[in-house]
Parts: sequence; structure tokens; C-alpha cells
Amino acid sequence: MKNVNIAILGLGNIGTGVYKALAMNGAHIASTTGLDITVAKIFEKDTDRDRGIDVAPSLFTQDEGDIFGDPAIDIVVELIGGVDFATSLMFKAVAAGKHVVTANKAALAANFEQLTGTAEGAGVMLRYEASVGGGIPIIGPLTTSLLANRYEELMGILNGTTNYILTKMTQEGRPYGEVLQEAQAKGFAEADPSGDVEGEDLANKLSILMSLVFGKRVLPSDIPTTGITGITMDDIRDAEKADCVIKLVASAFRQGDGAECFIQPVLLNKGHPLASVNDEYNALYIKGNAVDDLMFYGKGAGPLPTASAVLGDVIEIGRAIG
Amino acid sequence: MKNVNIAILGLGNIGTGVYKALAMNGAHIASTTGLDITVAKIFEKDTDRDRGIDVAPSLFTQDEGDIFGDPAIDIVVELIGGVDFATSLMFKAVAAGKHVVTANKAALAANFEQLTGTAEGAGVMLRYEASVGGGIPIIGPLTTSLLANRYEELMGILNGTTNYILTKMTQEGRPYGEVLQEAQAKGFAEADPSGDVEGEDLANKLSILMSLVFGKRVLPSDIPTTGITGITMDDIRDAEKADCVIKLVASAFRQGDGAECFIQPVLLNKGHPLASVNDEYNALYIKGNAVDDLMFYGKGAGPLPTASAVLGDVIEIGRAIG
Repeated sequence: MKNVNIAILGLGNIGTGVYKALAMNGAHIASTTGLDITVAKIFEKDTDRDRGIDVAPSLFTQDEGDIFGDPAIDIVVELIGGVDFATSLMFKAVAAGKHVVTANKAALAANFEQLTGTAEGAGVMLRYEASVGGGIPIIGPLTTSLLANRYEELMGILNGTTNYILTKMTQEGRPYGEVLQEAQAKGFAEADPSGDVEGEDLANKLSILMSLVFGKRVLPSDIPTTGITGITMDDIRDAEKADCVIKLVASAFRQGDGAECFIQPVLLNKGHPLASVNDEYNALYIKGNAVDDLMFYGKGAGPLPTASAVLGDVIEIGRAIG
Repeated sequence: MKNVNIAILGLGNIGTGVYKALAMNGAHIASTTGLDITVAKIFEKDTDRDRGIDVAPSLFTQDEGDIFGDPAIDIVVELIGGVDFATSLMFKAVAAGKHVVTANKAALAANFEQLTGTAEGAGVMLRYEASVGGGIPIIGPLTTSLLANRYEELMGILNGTTNYILTKMTQEGRPYGEVLQEAQAKGFAEADPSGDVEGEDLANKLSILMSLVFGKRVLPSDIPTTGITGITMDDIRDAEKADCVIKLVASAFRQGDGAECFIQPVLLNKGHPLASVNDEYNALYIKGNAVDDLMFYGKGAGPLPTASAVLGDVIEIGRAIG
């Protein structure tokens, strides 16, 4: 049995999900992988909130030195979110020789080359499966099993909130504003939904995919982006008449030696593999010049699906070290 | 640049596909992975057939010593097919300290523990992404990104021939015998189709998945299996009336500490993610206790998609060695 000690930065929804998933599956993971994964520290100032988990108070710290200065900690799991502070913590972790796992699409999209380059230079691993598509294995296959392909194009339904809203508009014939309110009441959409419905979240994910799939750095703010706030019930009905559905799709395709990308609501024929991706589900459709077309489908958000991806990264680092 | 020398055993459809894919994408692979993959030897007695590829005659050998005795060969790629001879060659490769990549589901299903155990004991890698689902990354995600899950159930459409036949029966209203004849004429079904239509090919794949997903060894011949030869147009029409389609599905599910599995044609509601997997496409639906449900979809056969998986394995071994 190999011991792997992790520090969790941020005990919000995702951090709590990671803690729960480890409590639920830690013994199973140990029996199948030989790794005994322990949460050694939690960097979090809100120590009193009831999260439905049983955390020893001694695990909490607000002192970065307890994380980066502790030689027993192998992997720093960054789940704070946001760009600047989270990025600075990841740089500190790398400088301290810690491997890093993150689910933070915004920080990665803003600083992709700096983060991956600094980690590589320091000889530590930086992994981020959870940053695109939640629990769906996407980054892994794209950077391992599929490397014999030259990628030709991709299309992704990679934002659960907008897909939920468009699905309800289509299936229940209710307008955007009404469905958005319901989604907010159910916790599927945030009080300020603009990051989702205007496509900013999707632009972060597409920026990461552009680096990985086409080797082209594109800042999220440079991706032509149209969200779903302008979609009317007339649009939905017109799509239906054309035997199509409207989906908010992140698209990219090879063009000569480069690649182009954009985000916009598109009409998908009902026979397209992405057309039946409904509700909060996500999917990535991708085409390689050897494998032809592929689709990966599953839960693109939520604490436990995201924790599955985070812990998968922890396991892969755990197997590679020591 | 790191040199990786491979020997291909068997230059049939898949072997030729690997050769073609490497000719097509070798420079791209080198630029993205830093690996210069070279076919150093081809073990094949039919040296004269026109395969549409340009192979130097000096690459061909019929002498096993040229493969297993050559220290320059890093990886043996077994694409001969069949059980006994292919298995014996894989054991010889392992004994010679060669890493092994195979697409051979029958040999793996028959000798899974012996092959994986012997390779592990010898400290060499044995990889087999192409054995289940052709080009679709399945083995990779199941054994890496998803390891934080306890798997609950899986359902696979993993035989292209039978899925093609059932799709045509459903969409074109033509009976089994007529569609089978057409599939044979197009090369989608073999002259003796029994290995596909009676479920034997699928049983080999499900046997491999049972070992990987549930850690349970089940010989293909011990899997309760019903093929599609008994499906009538009445069955197809009855399914349609129930808003369902008939698919040949390999199923497995956790039961207590163990797991059960079977193969049979099933009625799938049209809303099920697998219901729209048509023609020669394959898909694996799998549920984990953290990630919830996932589906992987793509081309389950064919020379280039299969070559994508084989070369993905070669690349991963290439990155890990030296």
C-alpha cells in the first residue's frame, strides 16, 4: 500500500464532493489501486458551515505554510475557483515541488502556458481532467489514447446550465425567462447567470481544448461567443419544423496549419449524435483523421461527477510517484 | 526525439491499417509526442499481396528469432488474430522483454490472467485498447480517469456487424436474411457470420470488460449469450409500437460483492443513450457510483479506427520507456 497525502484548497461544493467521494470510495480505491489517499490538510477559512461531512477541525488551516511547507503533502488539489488567487496558489504549490490537480477552467484558460510550462519545468505533474466536461473522461483520452490522430474538428455541449434551459424550452414549450427562473430555484443556474448563459464558462473550456487539441493558444475573450439569451420560442419552433434542435455548441476545426473556433447556438439535425444530449448532460464530439468520429457523454457538473475526475487525476499521480 | 521500434505480427486488415496510419500520421505524432515510431520488422508469410502500401521487402520475416532476438525492437504489435498461436507469440515477446500491444479480443478473453500476469511479472507493458470498441477509448478511461468509482453496471453495443443488421431491419423494414446478405456483399459481415451474429465476438469483449470493470474472471463460453439470428420483422415492429428499438447488448451489473453478465437482444426505449447508436457504430454505457452515467461512442471496427487505438497504446508505451 502506498500512502498519498493530498491538501484540498477550498471546501466549497466541489471540495466537499471530493471529500465525500473519498469517504465513500477510499477503501475501494485502495483495494483496486494500492493507493491509500488521505486528506492531510484543508485550506479554508469557513470552518463552521455544515457540509454534511465529518471533518476533523485539526485538518483546517488558513496558513499557506501549512500546505506548501509540509513535506508530507504530495498533491495540492486546487478547488478554490476564480483566476488570480487560485493561480498564485498553484504557482506556489509547483514551486514547493507539489503535484497539482485542479478543476479550475477559468484559471487554466487565463494562464494555460504559464501553468503547464512552470509545472513541466519544475518536474511536477499538473492535471485538470475536471476542468472540461466534469466527470466525463475527455482530457485523458485526448492526451493519451487518441494521440495517433490529427484532430480535424470538435463540437462540444459543455455547459449544463444552458443545455438544461434549451432542453426545457424545446421539450416543454416554455420561454427562456421562465425556464431560467426555475433553473435558479433548483440550483442549476446561479443568481447571476451571465457566466453561463452568455457563454463565458464555455469559452474557458474551449480555450483549454484549443491548446490541447489544436496546439493553438486562444484567450477566452478572443473566442467569438454568442450565448442563449436571445433565443426565442419562435427559434425553438422553427428548429422543430426543420427536424432540428437548438444547442449551444463550442466548435473548432482545423484550417490549414491553424485552427478556428467559435461559440454559438446552432441548429443540429435530430440525427446528430449531439442532438439527443439533453438536460444537464454534456458531450464532446470530436473527429480524428484515423479514428473518425467519437463522442464522450456524461454528467458535466455536480460535486460527485467532478470529484470522480479530480480523484482520477490524484490516482494517476499517486501511481506515478514514489 | 526518441526512437521507438515496433514489430508488427500479421499484416492483414488491421496490420495494414496500422502501417497506413503510421505513414499518414508518423510526422504528426513525432511533432506532438517526440516519438519517432518505426516499423522495424513485419512477421508475415504473405509478402506478395497488394495491400496498397509501400513496404520494403527487407522488413518481412517468417523467422521468430528476427523479432524476439532483435534487441532493437521495443514493442511487439500482435495483429495475427486467433487464440493459440497469437497467445504463444505474445508469451514469447514477453519472455524476450518486449512490450506488447494487441487488438486480439479472443486471445485476451481466453488467457486474460495468464497474459496480464506474465507481463506484469516480467516488468513489461501489455496494452489492448483496440480489443474492445475498436477506436473508441474505453480500456484507457476505465483503467485511469474513472478509477475513483465503484462501477455499478455497463451496457455495450460492441459488435458492428450485428448493429448494422439490426439498424437496417429497423430503418428499412427488410428481414434478417436479406440484410445479412447485403452486409456480406459490402464486406461488413464475414462469409461465415456466426462469430458475430451468434454473439461470440461480443462474449470475448464482455469477458475482458468483466475482468477490468468488476475484477471477475468469466470465460466467454460461460457468458449466457443469445445472438440475433432469431429476430424477426414482427419483433422489430413490436418494438417500434412500444417506442423502442432492438439492440444486441452486452450487459453486466454489480451484485453484492460479485457481478453478473449476459448478452442478448434487448428492447431499448428510444430515449436511452444507446438507442441512437446505429449502423456500424459502437458504444459503451457505464455507470459509476461517483460519476453516474457515461457513454463512449464511435467506430468500433475498421482498419484506421482500430489502428488509432493500437498506435495510441504504442505511443503510451513509447513515452513510458527509455
